Amino acid sequence: MITLYGVLRSRAARNVWLAKELGLSFTRVPVIQAYRLPDPLAADAPLNTASPAFRAINPNGRIPALVDGDLTLCESFAINLYLARKHGGPLAPADLREDGLMTMWSLWAVTECEPHGLAILLHSGGERSESDRRTVATAIETLRPAFAVLEAALRKAGGFLVGGRFTVADINVAEVLRYAQPATAFLAEHPAIGAWLNACQARPAFREMMAERSTEPA
Amino acid sequence: MITLYGVLRSRAARNVWLAKELGLSFTRVPVIQAYRLPDPLAADAPLNTASPAFRAINPNGRIPALVDGDLTLCESFAINLYLARKHGGPLAPADLREDGLMTMWSLWAVTECEPHGLAILLHSGGERSESDRRTVATAIETLRPAFAVLEAALRKAGGFLVGGRFTVADINVAEVLRYAQPATAFLAEHPAIGAWLNACQARPAFREMMAERSTEPA
Repeated sequence: MITLYGVLRSRAARNVWLAKELGLSFTRVPVIQAYRLPDPLAADAPLNTASPAFRAINPNGRIPALVDGDLTLCESFAINLYLARKHGGPLAPADLREDGLMTMWSLWAVTECEPHGLAILLHSGGERSESDRRTVATAIETLRPAFAVLEAALRKAGGFLVGGRFTVADINVAEVLRYAQPATAFLAEHPAIGAWLNACQARPAFREMMAERSTEPA
Repeated sequence: MITLYGVLRSRAARNVWLAKELGLSFTRVPVIQAYRLPDPLAADAPLNTASPAFRAINPNGRIPALVDGDLTLCESFAINLYLARKHGGPLAPADLREDGLMTMWSLWAVTECEPHGLAILLHSGGERSESDRRTVATAIETLRPAFAVLEAALRKAGGFLVGGRFTVADINVAEVLRYAQPATAFLAEHPAIGAWLNACQARPAFREMMAERSTEPA
């Protein structure tokens, strides 16, 4: 039995999306980020990333974490690549070549996009200060070359990143790009990215995950 | 035939180290970082990350890049994981479980260590300003929890990260930790990390790569 640790308002969302795509049976323990709690080490605090019981599972104190038998994994993209490889099927790499490309795109999303996508997410919406606007504008300009690469890759590859079909690579990259979606005008400059994100986010497994996520406290 | 693009004073070093460990035959094209050149687009500029000829290979304009037949890969850790999986042997994952762990440690090095390791590298040595010292001190404090995790993991796992033997995971993580090595006092607080780095860097393939690297202009 697989156990996945993490609330859905975290990088655990990408693992739950994949697990639902694969039809995996799993238990989810909604470990919450310690920084969201007033006193994470209080006796009555919910299980969180500072709890000794969770630190025993992931000493990095980060969600998500996965336990599958005697294997414990952290790093959300490593978890997704592992689950896809283990389960097989169209979402998984068909060969070493595809595995290389899926690993590459996952790392690419981390190194080229994730920090700037998060900057957009955290400084958009609600009452925005001048400083928020500047932070978002800088993040967009920093993301621009990566978006150009992704736009061209999607056009060339026929709409999905690897193998001409929806795979774990699309889930991993789309979940990072979701952070940048508040930058609607910037997205609109990239029609292939927009169409691909729409296709990814129209999938029933994504919608189910997001519906569950919306029941969690913001 | 495999072609690897990048000077050794770049993340291509980790790929050359692995290729030498595996005894692979490869061609290396010493593409240099554009920011190191006064005019990267000049007609007589050496092949660099801004050159159209290189951008045709890696549109991200980053080194390293790998071409293996009709496969082009970027992201140095994806390249190393691909080459190890393709070649097999003790450096490669023996099964899906090990592949998960090797992918996890590679991502962990990127997300938890690389930016702070680079901050140490770029602000150590030579004439250091007060601002350099502050940057290094902050990077060390930010790295402290990750180093505690790595120290404990190496003690528990018997000196190497995965499977009780030297693997591609050790190369990937050790090449990020190399950036932090100017922080000698901090390293000395972590004897298992120190012993592991020494073991990794004592390998003939690493020493050969570093000897070649030292012949490149600084």
